Amino acid sequence: MIICDGMADRSIPELAYKTPLEIAKKPNMDWIAKRGISGIMDAIAPGVAPGSDTAHLALLGYDPYEIYTGRGPFEAAGAGIELKPGDIAFRANYATVDKNMVVTDRRAGRIHDTEPLAEAVQNIKIKGADFIFRSTVGHRATLVLRGGGISPEVTDSDPHEEGKKPLKFEPCLKAPEQVVPAYPIIAGGVRKYVMRRRRAAKTAKLLNDFSHKAHEILKKHPLNIERAKKKLPPANYLLLRGGGVVPRLVPFYEKFKIRGACVAAAALVKGVCKLSGMTVVNVPGATGSVDTNLDAKAKAALQQLKSHDFVLLHVKGSDEASHDGNLRAKIDIIERTDEIINQFIDAVDFLVVTADHTTPIEFKNHTADPVPVAISGPGVRADDVKTYSERSAANGGLGRIRGKDLIPIIADLMGKGHKFGE
Amino acid sequence: MIICDGMADRSIPELAYKTPLEIAKKPNMDWIAKRGISGIMDAIAPGVAPGSDTAHLALLGYDPYEIYTGRGPFEAAGAGIELKPGDIAFRANYATVDKNMVVTDRRAGRIHDTEPLAEAVQNIKIKGADFIFRSTVGHRATLVLRGGGISPEVTDSDPHEEGKKPLKFEPCLKAPEQVVPAYPIIAGGVRKYVMRRRRAAKTAKLLNDFSHKAHEILKKHPLNIERAKKKLPPANYLLLRGGGVVPRLVPFYEKFKIRGACVAAAALVKGVCKLSGMTVVNVPGATGSVDTNLDAKAKAALQQLKSHDFVLLHVKGSDEASHDGNLRAKIDIIERTDEIINQFIDAVDFLVVTADHTTPIEFKNHTADPVPVAISGPGVRADDVKTYSERSAANGGLGRIRGKDLIPIIADLMGKGHKFGE
Repeated sequence: MIICDGMADRSIPELAYKTPLEIAKKPNMDWIAKRGISGIMDAIAPGVAPGSDTAHLALLGYDPYEIYTGRGPFEAAGAGIELKPGDIAFRANYATVDKNMVVTDRRAGRIHDTEPLAEAVQNIKIKGADFIFRSTVGHRATLVLRGGGISPEVTDSDPHEEGKKPLKFEPCLKAPEQVVPAYPIIAGGVRKYVMRRRRAAKTAKLLNDFSHKAHEILKKHPLNIERAKKKLPPANYLLLRGGGVVPRLVPFYEKFKIRGACVAAAALVKGVCKLSGMTVVNVPGATGSVDTNLDAKAKAALQQLKSHDFVLLHVKGSDEASHDGNLRAKIDIIERTDEIINQFIDAVDFLVVTADHTTPIEFKNHTADPVPVAISGPGVRADDVKTYSERSAANGGLGRIRGKDLIPIIADLMGKGHKFGE
Repeated sequence: MIICDGMADRSIPELAYKTPLEIAKKPNMDWIAKRGISGIMDAIAPGVAPGSDTAHLALLGYDPYEIYTGRGPFEAAGAGIELKPGDIAFRANYATVDKNMVVTDRRAGRIHDTEPLAEAVQNIKIKGADFIFRSTVGHRATLVLRGGGISPEVTDSDPHEEGKKPLKFEPCLKAPEQVVPAYPIIAGGVRKYVMRRRRAAKTAKLLNDFSHKAHEILKKHPLNIERAKKKLPPANYLLLRGGGVVPRLVPFYEKFKIRGACVAAAALVKGVCKLSGMTVVNVPGATGSVDTNLDAKAKAALQQLKSHDFVLLHVKGSDEASHDGNLRAKIDIIERTDEIINQFIDAVDFLVVTADHTTPIEFKNHTADPVPVAISGPGVRADDVKTYSERSAANGGLGRIRGKDLIPIIADLMGKGHKFGE
């Protein structure tokens, strides 16, 4: 299954109201559509624009409304941290604050090679919880809190703008309709409200103390002193966002009896697959960008297919190009992705090509428009659709399905379906 | 409404990737599709392969996830036993065990005329519950437990293979996510766990005692002694399976204000209709097989339409042919079913033709592929679909619907819809 992140688009006036998929040369995707069955798919529901995190959860058969409280846990899992259900995880940016504690650079001059800083931060000990901190790509990092009596019901510290001070963490109790079963403590009624407030307040205090200590350590760190000498902005503050509780997912294999592997560069997608118990492969040269080594990813996918029933091959570049509003780059990554699909046509039984969500070039962000999906393989009821695109797929034999239906449909075609009743 | 069990199929390479429905001559089904509106339908949900029991429940507007715990109750109801909500019912096979209690024939040489055996078994009395036992077709029978403090949370005794011993009944408490509201005792939390275990243990013991007594009675029964003389395998053991609790269904008439009747041979379908409060007709010559007297069924349906608003006419042969992988027989039963539809075209307002699930000839079991559905009648918004098949229906005006939507759609067309709001 090839998921091209954000590949679906809207009608673009400059393309005579066509979409990038309708313009791109993609004979292999068209082959799948022609030989197979097509449809349109709402990753979550019509009118709901999904994040890549919630979309991938849904495409793997999980209900994001049940298990998603924030992006942090999936980024942290993708970064290789061994998480436990109940951990609270955040995404972090190394940032620069001035003497008045005003954020002057949210990315600390796009610093990289931050491992020495992470090591220093990792030594922070605060009574009440364990802190696990790890640098990831560039100026990014991830923070995990572990311990009893902590809560994801807190605000973030990232002001999302330069010229402002980092925000203080504060308790923010969710309304019951926003409460997710992944975090049982917040599922209770009024009776548990006092307990929830206490946990949230404790967690906010722990995070404020951590942020303060991290700042004290970072501002004196030799690496930052050296950066100051070079007139580079020091990475002296950690802005935290996307906090969420690590959910307990029923393993993918247990749900579907399918041995799954994931070939992806994006930490988020790796994290979703990791938490679902799938094998997650690190591919050298896979960057999560338009310059990624797609051929290496295809080879890795073929390798995993020797020991797995199912491989999710994720291509991030199409989303990046869309967020940048770069039409040429988007068409290019679609065409290059199509080229590698050729290797799978004779190598596997079933091929699925889809996107996790629509990211229109003109809107530069995710929208709720459904995505095209095409499935080819033995027994599949081929329809009259001849090409792979948003528009042609809408006439396909699958009709309009939900993301959560996709794996059950594929499992059934693979002969691994589950009969309900006799 | 004509339901051809398992009629839908997948693309078959030998038929140039067509399906049996696309090959069969079926002018009357095509007439319904051409004059009416078509669509594809997931009896339960996309990707879920239904049993005939859960599918028929859904097609009659019930939620099988709410009321289904096993096939037993529907078989027992179809066999004519007057059930009460809370009864636990099993399907039974007369089987042969040797002196070491190893099953040597799961069907006791496909014994029939088992009434004398059933009479003897019916005399078994065990303190703690009432036992109702009845022979049905051939080597089959059905057992109902009635009494306070019993539970469907027990295993079965059928090893499903010869050369093995019958299994002992044991308590098997379902995980909360498998719990169905039909059996409220298992819907409680940890607090009720002890009670559940006790009920399940009691039920398992009752069933083990029953199985033992039945064996003692059957092995000495004159009919079996006579069979032994004729070198026929004795029917000396009852293998029980498909246990479930009898649900309390809101009657079909109460739900939809439609007086319904059912013309079917299959005990299962009769049972579903019986439990929903529909009139169930016994048609001489209706066998539930490809040799059934379809004309007699059509006549019976026309007769029932004089006193009912709605008749479900069920044809089982198409599923039987599919399970056998018999393409010729499948096409034949489709064509013969089509012939009888001709009698309805002038006789009724609305005609519906569909299947309960897909049973591909090549897979020989139920799959989750959606089934075609076509509805003709006054006021129906006819679409461009010209023939009745899986593929053509996917382009129809109904789109992709769920089984539970079908009766409400039909009721609305009949002017018996229910307005929600004003």
